[in-house]
Amino acid sequence: MEKQKGQVTIPTDMDVIQDTVRLARRWGADAVRDCDGTEFPVELKDAGMKVYATYYTTRKDNAWAKAHPEEIQQMYLMTPLVTAESTTLRIRLMKGLHPELLQVNTRDDITRWWEVIDRSTGEVVPVSDWSFEEADGEVVIKSEPFHDYTVSFLAYLIWDPVHMYNATVNNWEGVEHQMTFDVRQPKTHAFTLERLEHYIKAHPYVDVLRFTTFFHQFTLVFDELRREKYVDWYGYSASVSPYILEQFEREAGYPFRPEYIIDQGYYNNQYRIPSKEYLDFTAFQRREVAKLIKEMVDITHAHHKEAMMFLGDHWIGTEPYMEEFAGVGLDAVVGSVGNGATLRLISDIKGVSYTEGRLLPYFFPDTFHEGGDPVKEAKENWVTARRAILRKPVDRIGYGGYLKLALDFPEFVAYVEHVCEEFRQLYKEIAGGTPYCAAKVAVLNCWGKSRSWGCHMVHHAIYFKKNYSYAGVIEALSGAPFDVSFISFDEIKEHPGMLSEYDVIFNIGDADTAHTGGAWWCDPQISGALKRFVYEGGGLIGVGEPCAHQANGHFFQLSTVFGVEKENGFTLGYDKYNWQEHLHFITEDACRTLDFGEGKKHMYALEGTQVLVTRDKSVQLAVNHFGAGRAAYISGLPYSFQNSRLLHRAVLWSAGKETELHRWFSQNQNTEVHAYPGNGRYCVVNNTDACQDTVIYRGDGTSFELSLKPAQMIWYDMEEA
Amino acid sequence: MEKQKGQVTIPTDMDVIQDTVRLARRWGADAVRDCDGTEFPVELKDAGMKVYATYYTTRKDNAWAKAHPEEIQQMYLMTPLVTAESTTLRIRLMKGLHPELLQVNTRDDITRWWEVIDRSTGEVVPVSDWSFEEADGEVVIKSEPFHDYTVSFLAYLIWDPVHMYNATVNNWEGVEHQMTFDVRQPKTHAFTLERLEHYIKAHPYVDVLRFTTFFHQFTLVFDELRREKYVDWYGYSASVSPYILEQFEREAGYPFRPEYIIDQGYYNNQYRIPSKEYLDFTAFQRREVAKLIKEMVDITHAHHKEAMMFLGDHWIGTEPYMEEFAGVGLDAVVGSVGNGATLRLISDIKGVSYTEGRLLPYFFPDTFHEGGDPVKEAKENWVTARRAILRKPVDRIGYGGYLKLALDFPEFVAYVEHVCEEFRQLYKEIAGGTPYCAAKVAVLNCWGKSRSWGCHMVHHAIYFKKNYSYAGVIEALSGAPFDVSFISFDEIKEHPGMLSEYDVIFNIGDADTAHTGGAWWCDPQISGALKRFVYEGGGLIGVGEPCAHQANGHFFQLSTVFGVEKENGFTLGYDKYNWQEHLHFITEDACRTLDFGEGKKHMYALEGTQVLVTRDKSVQLAVNHFGAGRAAYISGLPYSFQNSRLLHRAVLWSAGKETELHRWFSQNQNTEVHAYPGNGRYCVVNNTDACQDTVIYRGDGTSFELSLKPAQMIWYDMEEA
Repeated sequence: MEKQKGQVTIPTDMDVIQDTVRLARRWGADAVRDCDGTEFPVELKDAGMKVYATYYTTRKDNAWAKAHPEEIQQMYLMTPLVTAESTTLRIRLMKGLHPELLQVNTRDDITRWWEVIDRSTGEVVPVSDWSFEEADGEVVIKSEPFHDYTVSFLAYLIWDPVHMYNATVNNWEGVEHQMTFDVRQPKTHAFTLERLEHYIKAHPYVDVLRFTTFFHQFTLVFDELRREKYVDWYGYSASVSPYILEQFEREAGYPFRPEYIIDQGYYNNQYRIPSKEYLDFTAFQRREVAKLIKEMVDITHAHHKEAMMFLGDHWIGTEPYMEEFAGVGLDAVVGSVGNGATLRLISDIKGVSYTEGRLLPYFFPDTFHEGGDPVKEAKENWVTARRAILRKPVDRIGYGGYLKLALDFPEFVAYVEHVCEEFRQLYKEIAGGTPYCAAKVAVLNCWGKSRSWGCHMVHHAIYFKKNYSYAGVIEALSGAPFDVSFISFDEIKEHPGMLSEYDVIFNIGDADTAHTGGAWWCDPQISGALKRFVYEGGGLIGVGEPCAHQANGHFFQLSTVFGVEKENGFTLGYDKYNWQEHLHFITEDACRTLDFGEGKKHMYALEGTQVLVTRDKSVQLAVNHFGAGRAAYISGLPYSFQNSRLLHRAVLWSAGKETELHRWFSQNQNTEVHAYPGNGRYCVVNNTDACQDTVIYRGDGTSFELSLKPAQMIWYDMEEA
Repeated sequence: MEKQKGQVTIPTDMDVIQDTVRLARRWGADAVRDCDGTEFPVELKDAGMKVYATYYTTRKDNAWAKAHPEEIQQMYLMTPLVTAESTTLRIRLMKGLHPELLQVNTRDDITRWWEVIDRSTGEVVPVSDWSFEEADGEVVIKSEPFHDYTVSFLAYLIWDPVHMYNATVNNWEGVEHQMTFDVRQPKTHAFTLERLEHYIKAHPYVDVLRFTTFFHQFTLVFDELRREKYVDWYGYSASVSPYILEQFEREAGYPFRPEYIIDQGYYNNQYRIPSKEYLDFTAFQRREVAKLIKEMVDITHAHHKEAMMFLGDHWIGTEPYMEEFAGVGLDAVVGSVGNGATLRLISDIKGVSYTEGRLLPYFFPDTFHEGGDPVKEAKENWVTARRAILRKPVDRIGYGGYLKLALDFPEFVAYVEHVCEEFRQLYKEIAGGTPYCAAKVAVLNCWGKSRSWGCHMVHHAIYFKKNYSYAGVIEALSGAPFDVSFISFDEIKEHPGMLSEYDVIFNIGDADTAHTGGAWWCDPQISGALKRFVYEGGGLIGVGEPCAHQANGHFFQLSTVFGVEKENGFTLGYDKYNWQEHLHFITEDACRTLDFGEGKKHMYALEGTQVLVTRDKSVQLAVNHFGAGRAAYISGLPYSFQNSRLLHRAVLWSAGKETELHRWFSQNQNTEVHAYPGNGRYCVVNNTDACQDTVIYRGDGTSFELSLKPAQMIWYDMEEA
């Protein structure tokens, strides 16, 4: 069989020109790219590969930035809470912030754009009761003794946070700090369009402008010790300026308050139930960002180049799952693939010609050092991503970083070759086909489609002890044979009948977060819609503290549906007798002790509920019938092959489709089947690094035994006996 | 040494007359009593012992009860939540309730005294939209589909709950169910006074009327299977009737609503932050109950008998820690001693001549059966209670139940003899003296003194998984060398300076319960008072989720004082670096792994806080300085000797009194020292059933080595070298 080529992007640098050509041939790469901190060697422009150029819209021109300090990108920050010990309180704004990263903005009217808040009462301190002493960098407040105060203020991003991160991680010495300018400002806006035009003209060999990215960096702040202090991959705090906010104010029709961005210091992160003002603001940003991107894309196209967006760094405001996105005319999106969920975050994007996943590890010295094991990382990354790719493939894959570092790891180079071949094979097999879906499911939260695949994500694909038990469900879904949607309470409110489109609804997370909905559940149109949905035969799966909000004698507002409640201290007087564990379809093939991750304490089952698993006198897994429908409660579900299988079974049971389990199904939970009825093809993948024996069930329930090699993928024709 | 006698009460019955005399001599009993289900043998009236007669104010006269069915005691009940599936919903009132226990009250106007509530919205359903179908026992509601509903209704207690419990536990066959009549009703009120007079006259040999108790049973309900369904030792649900509530309405000056008692089905249990209406109602009940008790006490005294109250059963409304109590003129209170805290619950009562503790085990067949180990129970009970008795002794001890059962356990009889002797010895030694207190501490919650020693108690001294980590602190305090108060937010609000009376304030429990205070912490007069108290040198100890309520960017409203916060999902973006554990005075002599009980998850320390113990990436123990004062955070503290020591050290450290540790102190934490400077005496007790070696520190810091036998108590003169 002739070796296939294409759909792979290789990074390069001045010092690896010949190696780039050699590895590109080996990996079948058809595109070559530069990276932050590397230079593209023009020698490669005629190497037969498409040339991507990382284009930094907001940085790499300190001359401009310095000439226009008022158009440096700004961000909103809040000081920590400080308790007044007397009637005067001094708060130093830059405490805990790196002075090379941020500079307090005193250029604009601080009485309008800053806010001092009494956090013991929530009240704003009148501007007449505070002042800023610039020499000390301190705000001096006329305070009530023993009240807590914070100052919300604007600061300039005088060092691009990603540039600072890259410089710190790679120990770059003597590198000038790249300042972040704000492309939304009038002078920089005009300059940027000229600069882009100029850049394209100066780099005629470039085929693809890989915008890294557009205008606003996700929130990323470092402390005095250059340690990460705050990060939110979805954060809008660094997308502001008085100029922009005045526009917003005019559009919104109500006065802006810093608190809309500051949000008590929680910065509207995705766990916060979004306020109307924050939703208004992000919608405004999306629209304005889209307009400006379109201008840049149009210039790119006018020069017959492609415009590719990197889904990261300065991506804030683009929101690929929101309506404005498709209209901007981008050709492609590329993003980092941390796991299955982040793969789907890229591959499910609509409105572009193609998507590309940048696989891990990035060729950086944190992995590629003596004693490092980049092959292990690469294997985990590939096998984790592969099951998601098989549901909805990206169109290309690629790597990033310093190619030179990878050269010292020949096993890694060989493994990448294998990955590239396997990717091309599966892509060709899928051929744009729709995979078999056993159920149509929707994840319900306050964000809906805007946080598709990224819900429960704080920093890109990073583990958090607080949420891995919830993020695990999203990860399992990313490679599961379901048609997955992300829906919001707003949508149900607008279209109560919309739920009937789905077989199973998920509500996943802790009480009173945006992921479960908090007070939304006190709206009977919401609780009623869900109850009706289940009553009429729908399935409901709750993980953690679904539908939970303390009100009206419930904690679980759908307690009669789930048949489960939480002991919050208020119901200790009620005796609880339902603790007997039952065997059930959902847990039938759980071979090891079930892992609920952080799980939940003090959960109990109501009368009539079927308890499946309890731990330490707390229900971890229970099921209940409600009308013609079914509900399953799970206390937490970190991603694992066993939990992925448990979820699969929970979905089928909730949907009343237990009898459909043995369709395109592998008995061994370390392996999975993906079928493409339209293509007449299906594959079996081994998700582990060990040999696996299994029984494969075809769509008609017939089966055969199969042994798979470590991580193996095997394709079959549906007609084969 | 001549054997001492007195201060002990022995139970008796018709079948153990001679044994009573024999054991009374052996135990040194000077009083004899009957019990529920036993008869007093008049042969014993001249046995040289005071005679107690259990007197049942509310039952043991079914003729009266049956003749006045409208004056049977009533209680408020709420049905479980039921979800409407259409526009008509039928709710059966008696579902889950034993029909021999309760009978729905349809005698009074149900449209006035019942309430149907839409628990999806919290709104009351108009009486025109529901009706009661008596034949089916169902309320029929015109419902909104998929809303949840409850019915609040009144029912008669047609079987006294304690009589039902005793009958069930002891398998009494053919016993007529004793009905509970309501002494607060006009006819029964008059009848009760006559009945009492009559009883006293008919039982001239009785010296002490042991009222069991007065008028209102604590909440105790059984389900169809005679299993306990709901219990609240502090519950007021069974103290109601339209007659009483109309009086309350007149006094309160606003219309009564069933919801004031129902409280969403939580029945105002002590975890609920009390509503104004509930506080008004309990205050009304206290005043009315006190008036009526006084009438009965006066009759008792007029016949030259003593009036003793049993702190249990129908004790609701007496509230021995509230102002009305001392005025009723009772001679004594007797109560069951489940542990140290319940001992103090009795012994700290003021306004009576003496107190008596009924030790465990109760002579019932659940303990006294073949294979049972009553000695083990008795030892645990005594040693647990003893440390509390040494802080504040009851004046007498006693036992209850069927003496006949105890006779079969000679080791038990011998052990009781030992307990009686040891009790008399320590009582004589203490001689009313005040023990040495190393600090003055106060437990702060919504209830204050009204729940002295009983806070975190649901059923009398019963373990609950949800609260043993908090109740453990109260138990440790019951025998610790501190002057302990219980204070409320209301009191601080009224007298902000009152905190300066204390060395250390405790706040113990879960967020948004009455034990920590919930929204009280959003009142800056409260948060400010606590902050000022610590700032000026006070100590603060928080256990669980102290001062926690999600608002204004805090969860811990005193986060700057404790230096600790909880990760609720809203601060995942903030990096947390303070995890290093430190050695500290508080944990210096912890010899085993510390046990935080249920502990807490996702707690983290702010910058500058000193972390002492973390578990599974959650801070369990941390200390912080704030101004001149100190705060300690503990995630949970079940009662154990080690934790008792840890608490002792935490109090001294918080109060800045570390140097005073070695005063009247035993190095071995299984042993304790109690000193009585006014008497010039001190004792050492071994709280374990094993030999213990220790070093004893006197008040001047001098020390000596000591070996103690199992459970030994040794008394010393302070002058001894």
